[in-house]
Amino acid sequence: MRFTKMQGCGNDYIYINCFKEKVENPEKLAIAMSERHFGVGSDGLVLIMPSEAADFRMRMFNLDGSEGKMCGNASRCVGKYVYERGLTEKTTVALETLGGIKILQLHVKDGIVESVTVDMGEPVLEAAEIPVLSDKHPVIGETVEILDRKFDFTCVSMGNPHAVTFVENVMEYPIEKYGRVSECHPIFPDRVNTEFVEIVDDSHVKMRVWERGSGETWACGTGASATAVACVLNGKTDRKVDVELIGGTLTIEWNAEDNHVYMTGPAEFSFDGEWLREV
Amino acid sequence: MRFTKMQGCGNDYIYINCFKEKVENPEKLAIAMSERHFGVGSDGLVLIMPSEAADFRMRMFNLDGSEGKMCGNASRCVGKYVYERGLTEKTTVALETLGGIKILQLHVKDGIVESVTVDMGEPVLEAAEIPVLSDKHPVIGETVEILDRKFDFTCVSMGNPHAVTFVENVMEYPIEKYGRVSECHPIFPDRVNTEFVEIVDDSHVKMRVWERGSGETWACGTGASATAVACVLNGKTDRKVDVELIGGTLTIEWNAEDNHVYMTGPAEFSFDGEWLREV
Repeated sequence: MRFTKMQGCGNDYIYINCFKEKVENPEKLAIAMSERHFGVGSDGLVLIMPSEAADFRMRMFNLDGSEGKMCGNASRCVGKYVYERGLTEKTTVALETLGGIKILQLHVKDGIVESVTVDMGEPVLEAAEIPVLSDKHPVIGETVEILDRKFDFTCVSMGNPHAVTFVENVMEYPIEKYGRVSECHPIFPDRVNTEFVEIVDDSHVKMRVWERGSGETWACGTGASATAVACVLNGKTDRKVDVELIGGTLTIEWNAEDNHVYMTGPAEFSFDGEWLREV
Repeated sequence: MRFTKMQGCGNDYIYINCFKEKVENPEKLAIAMSERHFGVGSDGLVLIMPSEAADFRMRMFNLDGSEGKMCGNASRCVGKYVYERGLTEKTTVALETLGGIKILQLHVKDGIVESVTVDMGEPVLEAAEIPVLSDKHPVIGETVEILDRKFDFTCVSMGNPHAVTFVENVMEYPIEKYGRVSECHPIFPDRVNTEFVEIVDDSHVKMRVWERGSGETWACGTGASATAVACVLNGKTDRKVDVELIGGTLTIEWNAEDNHVYMTGPAEFSFDGEWLREV
């Protein structure tokens, strides 16, 4: 079975073109192929499929075989794949995901997709919908005590809950220590992803993220989106900001006209492969 | 550039057939391809090349681009590769490595190499040559204090230095805590690999290893060889023993006639690939 390995900001998935390949048991295959010593190694498996509702459909399976809703980094890679591998000539692609239909804007030069913009939708600011236990609206500067420190969290849902806090010198910050406790703090009924953000200037921030269930990751598209929204709500940056992550940089714009968040970032091919094992 | 990913006991390398492919800068390529998010992901890069002194030559490059001397797990994979990919019809293959010429015995059934035996050479038992600071010969039961415990180490070199100790319930043993300190103990001038070994019966032991410079790994061919030698020296097992590692099982025989250690174990293809990046 043929596959392709791609990454966006270091978030690496195995992509299978299901117009050509048949995948019987994606849960089992995701577990086998994602394993980094005996398999291919990846953050998960993405199936690129026909869709009745959009141009293409994407199904995502995590390391443990569970199905994921949506991933901004993966959807950019799907955009690059379908264009450069000749599955479409469109540069605006509608992609069906378990998190709804996402619109991708491909930025093409000389036949190469140099970057992709994903419409991440509108941020959710209602405390009950994020969810976070707070009387504030929007939830800006909610003070939470974690271990020996107090954090002022700005809370945003981008389909999943985020708590954003501003710190100095984020690359040296002990985010594991505080992120781990923040994740399970009782004011977050569904747990939370925590973003630690250092402001560089009006259009540039650095961010590290502690993802619920995963720990620190190198990139998180919804986290970068929530960060940009939190920066604007706190008057820290302009509405368009470069969010520098460990795995790369995403440009996030919280559009004033339609209230949508647009994420622009890279997508790269690493290698094509032919899977030689039975599972 | 085409490559193949293989593993032996979970020790996974990228193999390049240099009869067909040209590699200009293997150090740089090893670093780029071994990286697990942006590259292919592996424990390193192995080049399969022509040899003037043997049937084939193997060059190994570690994650950091440094060149390695020899790896038992990788040499088994080279044996499977050259036979199944039609580079040879021999089932006894002489392989030139930086650690000398190694003889591989391929166990073939219906065209498939089911396992490979590698002649690991004679164990070195002289304290000064291992090296370990000890008056014993051989170095059996050298008592060393590490943190709050005392260990009786049996020391063996298989081209690299090993200290073997016997413990109960090795899967639960805190090997990181003790292995980290053992590695740099002053009686080991070149540092040491430490094997923690649980005796199951006369022909079966379980082993975990703390490798110098790498920490705990899933498999170590020289470590399994040193373990079998230490088991025999301590009267714990027969001369032929299955060494169960986290990544799989190696059968080690310390041959009484020629004093050589023979390691037999698996080698498996994971996938073939075509590298799409420039470096």
